[in-house]
Amino acid sequence: MSAPLIGQYDPAMTGFMNETQARYRQVFRTQNAATMLIDGTSRAGIEAVLVSALRPGDRVLVPIFGRFGHLLAEIAQRAGADVHTIEVPWGEVFEPEQIEAAIRNVQPRMLAIVQGDTSTTMCQPLEELGAICRAHDVFFYTDATASIVGNDLRADDWQLDAVSVGLQKCLGGPSGSAPVTLSDRLVDWMRQRRKVEAGIRTEAHQDGSEPFIRSNYFDLPMILDYWGEERLNHHTEATTMLYGASECARLVIEEGLDQAIERHRQHGDAMLAGVQALGLKPFGDLNHKMNNVVGVAIPDSVDGDTVRAQMLTDFGIEIGTSFGPLHGKIWRIGTMGYNARKSAVLQTLSCLDNCLAVNGYRGPRGEAVQAALESYAHA
Amino acid sequence: MSAPLIGQYDPAMTGFMNETQARYRQVFRTQNAATMLIDGTSRAGIEAVLVSALRPGDRVLVPIFGRFGHLLAEIAQRAGADVHTIEVPWGEVFEPEQIEAAIRNVQPRMLAIVQGDTSTTMCQPLEELGAICRAHDVFFYTDATASIVGNDLRADDWQLDAVSVGLQKCLGGPSGSAPVTLSDRLVDWMRQRRKVEAGIRTEAHQDGSEPFIRSNYFDLPMILDYWGEERLNHHTEATTMLYGASECARLVIEEGLDQAIERHRQHGDAMLAGVQALGLKPFGDLNHKMNNVVGVAIPDSVDGDTVRAQMLTDFGIEIGTSFGPLHGKIWRIGTMGYNARKSAVLQTLSCLDNCLAVNGYRGPRGEAVQAALESYAHA
Repeated sequence: MSAPLIGQYDPAMTGFMNETQARYRQVFRTQNAATMLIDGTSRAGIEAVLVSALRPGDRVLVPIFGRFGHLLAEIAQRAGADVHTIEVPWGEVFEPEQIEAAIRNVQPRMLAIVQGDTSTTMCQPLEELGAICRAHDVFFYTDATASIVGNDLRADDWQLDAVSVGLQKCLGGPSGSAPVTLSDRLVDWMRQRRKVEAGIRTEAHQDGSEPFIRSNYFDLPMILDYWGEERLNHHTEATTMLYGASECARLVIEEGLDQAIERHRQHGDAMLAGVQALGLKPFGDLNHKMNNVVGVAIPDSVDGDTVRAQMLTDFGIEIGTSFGPLHGKIWRIGTMGYNARKSAVLQTLSCLDNCLAVNGYRGPRGEAVQAALESYAHA
Repeated sequence: MSAPLIGQYDPAMTGFMNETQARYRQVFRTQNAATMLIDGTSRAGIEAVLVSALRPGDRVLVPIFGRFGHLLAEIAQRAGADVHTIEVPWGEVFEPEQIEAAIRNVQPRMLAIVQGDTSTTMCQPLEELGAICRAHDVFFYTDATASIVGNDLRADDWQLDAVSVGLQKCLGGPSGSAPVTLSDRLVDWMRQRRKVEAGIRTEAHQDGSEPFIRSNYFDLPMILDYWGEERLNHHTEATTMLYGASECARLVIEEGLDQAIERHRQHGDAMLAGVQALGLKPFGDLNHKMNNVVGVAIPDSVDGDTVRAQMLTDFGIEIGTSFGPLHGKIWRIGTMGYNARKSAVLQTLSCLDNCLAVNGYRGPRGEAVQAALESYAHA
């Protein structure tokens, strides 16, 4: 990311843009031409998909199993969509039958669902939802920000019409760029509302039909014109973030996507075994836990915020709490990106073990590292 | 920007956020508490201001003197505002009386105007508009993306209610972060529509009145809650871009804002003298030219795109054309940020002199550098 800046229409720059697109096609396991970056954080990618796909009044179904499901619903609502939600208790995921029943009932334009909701650490299975969506002529979108590269995702095999992600989880980069991929059929739908800016329009440009997309910055047909052959000016691509996003993908491809996911599984399993050996109760349905984060109930015998603060200040290790109903109830410990490695797992468990002890924790001591090492031995 | 990433609620990170705010208050010459970054390119800052300030149906007056005025109008239109425009021919700016007459006529909620429109190289005087806006109870917003640090801007003295900028012009950084400042009275207005996300809302949070802001990502009251004392989670701040934005401001403060503007004036004047000595006709009203860019009519005796391509490919120097009615009619040559220095000016003029000659240009030769040096001598 410290490489020099170059002009946005320098052939070197447009070459980097093309290369970045090709790399993210591999990360998303897709052939979609419309694979590019949105210049903003993960939720910029979410908003771009929803505001470009949904006309005001279009129905969207959002199955909610954590905080980020609520976020999808909220963003869709602000875009003027007619938002329908179904919910399961935090710590669970949906059965395909529940979602299909809701699709029959709501008959939405789009199904929008989070893959891995870090607020609960649950990973929603998506494999069977694509066929259901096609059968009902529904666009299928997932926000895979927290799950991509740490858990399996197959955009084409699973018939996803849109996936948006961010760099700051398992891709191991900084927040601030949102890779997105769109199926041809979703692009065709969005392009019906294509509009070219007044300041750069020529007679050759034809606008689509109203209502036009409610956002200029997140207008995906315009963004595609910029990434595509016409290179029609929209924003000025965020050069440094593009360098970073591209390098994140390059490193994953170099490692191998399957290997990267397996790495997250192994280190996530070791962390889980370790916190269980500490006597901490993991949160939620362990059959559907994301590989890259574990939630544990904060034990009664300690003050959760004091432990978190000491872990950060004295041990230099940050663990999270959660949001909404789980705020102050669980800790969340990530093993993702650069931290999905043995030394990060063993350091965290060693320090947590001792930090709990000095904070008056009444539970097993000295067992966590051994349990993690056994998990690795059997991986 | 290659500094390590840290957690978004790490006290070091929130400290960096506070420091960045303080630095941009100096760049904007303001005391506004609400001074922060929007995580996106310059137009993300524009959209955040317009969509948060304007309710659907609110009238906004946009005086247009180039491509980026059209952009403000377009973004406001997409936000559902009732957009009223006035125009002057490209190459001119507005008199305060023209704008006041339009304000009387339209009675808008907001005046939204570009300061420096790079498409025409014109810099709109803003000093007198603040008092006019206050007299008519109108919010006063300027997009100073291309002008900030290269031309005078005084947010408080000029009674601006909102200013948005980007890093990639005179601030000398990468595109991808949009510093914004908002007056208290505009923040109060926006906060009337405050809404807290369902996934993180507590009983202590009270929503404002509908219609809620149409965008989640660009909801400035929510973004202010994240930058403010409550640190209520919105996006995950783009850490690397924040480091870059902060460093851009630090360097300007170190140089001195007045000195930086004067530097842009000197090098811009030298470039202007040079291109005039080449026999190239500058575009537009030179009394209102931005310091940091000059437009020149492409001479009939050469092919504009061929010259631009050779300048880039063989000489390694990028010059631009313009947009819309000026596309292919003028070249635009910037002297901004890192390129506002003597060697960049003299290299560009020397190369352009020779590049024009080998492309069959029939005009003065060998005079440009001398003219630039004389401009420096009299600066």
